[in-house]
Amino acid sequence: MPTTIADLDTPALLLERGKVQANAERLRSHIESLGSKLRLHVKTAKSLEVTRLVQGDAPGPITVSTLKEAEEFAQAGYRDILYGVAFAPGKLARALALVRSGVDLKIVLDSPESTQAIAAALKPTDPALKVLVEIDCDGHRSGLKPGDPKIVEIAHILASSCARVAGVMTHAGGSYDCRSIEAIRAIAGRERDAVVTAAKQLREAGFDASIVSVGSTPTATYAEDLTGVTEVRAGVFVFFDLVMAGIDVCKVEDIAITVLGTVIGHQREKGWILTDAGWMAMSRDRGTSKQPVDQGYGLVCDASGRPIPGLIVSDASQEHGIISHRSGDPAQVPELPIGTRLRILPNHACATAAQYDHYNVLDGSQRLEARWPRFSGW
Amino acid sequence: MPTTIADLDTPALLLERGKVQANAERLRSHIESLGSKLRLHVKTAKSLEVTRLVQGDAPGPITVSTLKEAEEFAQAGYRDILYGVAFAPGKLARALALVRSGVDLKIVLDSPESTQAIAAALKPTDPALKVLVEIDCDGHRSGLKPGDPKIVEIAHILASSCARVAGVMTHAGGSYDCRSIEAIRAIAGRERDAVVTAAKQLREAGFDASIVSVGSTPTATYAEDLTGVTEVRAGVFVFFDLVMAGIDVCKVEDIAITVLGTVIGHQREKGWILTDAGWMAMSRDRGTSKQPVDQGYGLVCDASGRPIPGLIVSDASQEHGIISHRSGDPAQVPELPIGTRLRILPNHACATAAQYDHYNVLDGSQRLEARWPRFSGW
Repeated sequence: MPTTIADLDTPALLLERGKVQANAERLRSHIESLGSKLRLHVKTAKSLEVTRLVQGDAPGPITVSTLKEAEEFAQAGYRDILYGVAFAPGKLARALALVRSGVDLKIVLDSPESTQAIAAALKPTDPALKVLVEIDCDGHRSGLKPGDPKIVEIAHILASSCARVAGVMTHAGGSYDCRSIEAIRAIAGRERDAVVTAAKQLREAGFDASIVSVGSTPTATYAEDLTGVTEVRAGVFVFFDLVMAGIDVCKVEDIAITVLGTVIGHQREKGWILTDAGWMAMSRDRGTSKQPVDQGYGLVCDASGRPIPGLIVSDASQEHGIISHRSGDPAQVPELPIGTRLRILPNHACATAAQYDHYNVLDGSQRLEARWPRFSGW
Repeated sequence: MPTTIADLDTPALLLERGKVQANAERLRSHIESLGSKLRLHVKTAKSLEVTRLVQGDAPGPITVSTLKEAEEFAQAGYRDILYGVAFAPGKLARALALVRSGVDLKIVLDSPESTQAIAAALKPTDPALKVLVEIDCDGHRSGLKPGDPKIVEIAHILASSCARVAGVMTHAGGSYDCRSIEAIRAIAGRERDAVVTAAKQLREAGFDASIVSVGSTPTATYAEDLTGVTEVRAGVFVFFDLVMAGIDVCKVEDIAITVLGTVIGHQREKGWILTDAGWMAMSRDRGTSKQPVDQGYGLVCDASGRPIPGLIVSDASQEHGIISHRSGDPAQVPELPIGTRLRILPNHACATAAQYDHYNVLDGSQRLEARWPRFSGW
């Protein structure tokens, strides 16, 4: 068993336990101070241990992006699960199996068409399935606009089946493209307004809207008013990343995962340092490419996790990373000999973590405390 | 067990056996007609079954991009293995374990500095390790320029250890950015010239250069002269992808893997079809974004694998794909109801396949013939 990061084969994924705890504590207390509660999105970490670090040992409410996540967490005793992707009839057998096993599963629908398909596929003997109507608050993806009569139509269609509407949900994914905290605050306001309006529609038509759910890490961080919102979903805040730092949702020092790589070569006249952390290690995510500061495939730190001024992973092939100074000036690249260990901060935590099957856990030093598995697939 | 693709949970990765065989046969016979031989790069498929489909059941020569690949294939009886990424001393223990187990392992070095580190770390009792000097033929990544006296210096440094130089290798990765077949042919010529020149340097200094290795799928496909080249490494040709089709290295019909997804929603006024195949299913690779035809996150086909004119995955979040017409015109988007199965051709086969732990194997129909595992990690 490796005992420090110097013993690890590279590339490897490192997780700083204390940073995850601090990120979780900060967001949870903000949401609770506004009278709502956090429903952790487990799609970022896909790890029971990370979820326990955020929520404590008792299973709390979670959001999942795949049925695999729901099944993995159900197996570990989690009962309050929201599957946050619009549902299709082909997924019904696995969802009903979860409900039969005791999971309080909420699925998401956003059209009378899909609702009819689900209602038609359900048998009277099937267990009760809760449905949230997905609301579109910013035009970036799925959902019905608040005020759309189809919101109530979905509830009516469900009433003839063993499923029933239990509320509304939205995701302000457009917040990832904001360029200021004010813009994020404005989107957070629209996110809240959208679901509160839609919930009112359902209630006025005589339907249940006890769940009023919003969420994205940026809007969760900067929301100022959650009146009428019963829960906030967020995921990437557990680790944070350069995309979030680029829109001031976190500081670079808050980022809790890094990729450990090794220097394998140089092209000194070009100012290049080559490492074994290519895109397979970092993912192909170039999420900072449209931000004011493009971080390439990641920001380069020394083995203690301190950024090395100006160094980024400027290009990558499958198992090669090319590190250079962001100015392109070879003279500004420090001498880092073959074998040097470096740590690279990722653009997008969800994508980078997905390249690995475990986390190497540290806490404020280079000593390894644990190895936590993560799962993948659907 | 699912028997047709209609039974599969989505997203899922499909592989067409006959296309892999035809792609392999075409490239192998081209290389052999030029008097050289194929050393398959297994980094694309990371699968024993795909390798057997290309090479037949008897283990043949392979290239790997990670020690994990070397170990997986060694376990299955493969002996002639080239680890194609510049080596660092921290990887020596695993490499020597492979050699001790009977693997004829070739490692790659491209500087006197790394060679000294390896030579210093080797003990006289360690088994003989073969080294290829990496040559830079196009300036895109690592290697020494042909003619550089360091090429011979590396051989001299090794002579004092139990390792020894066995030849030279290069990779014309710059060929991926070509815009014409003529440009690829020109790079293929430079790729050959670079290693033939470097091999001559070694031989004139009295060293072995029995391995003279080139390779990239584009240059392997369009090479016209391989005189002096003992082997050609290529990997992505087993599956091909939209990046390769975009530079005329294959036809779209040759692409052997697709991602199966399900329609989960619509935003009809925008001309959007939503599916459950987001970037986790496709990878974040946007390799066609700089080509004349940008294919978004992939080209959309019906369940039989026929492209639907003009439809691409124009945007993606983790578990949502947004399909639209490349013109942006909602009127050109066909009606594809909730639950419709679609197949999406990937930008980059290596990146997309890496999102999965198995292949669902078809052959010219929608009937499933087999499920082949693939591995990941380092």
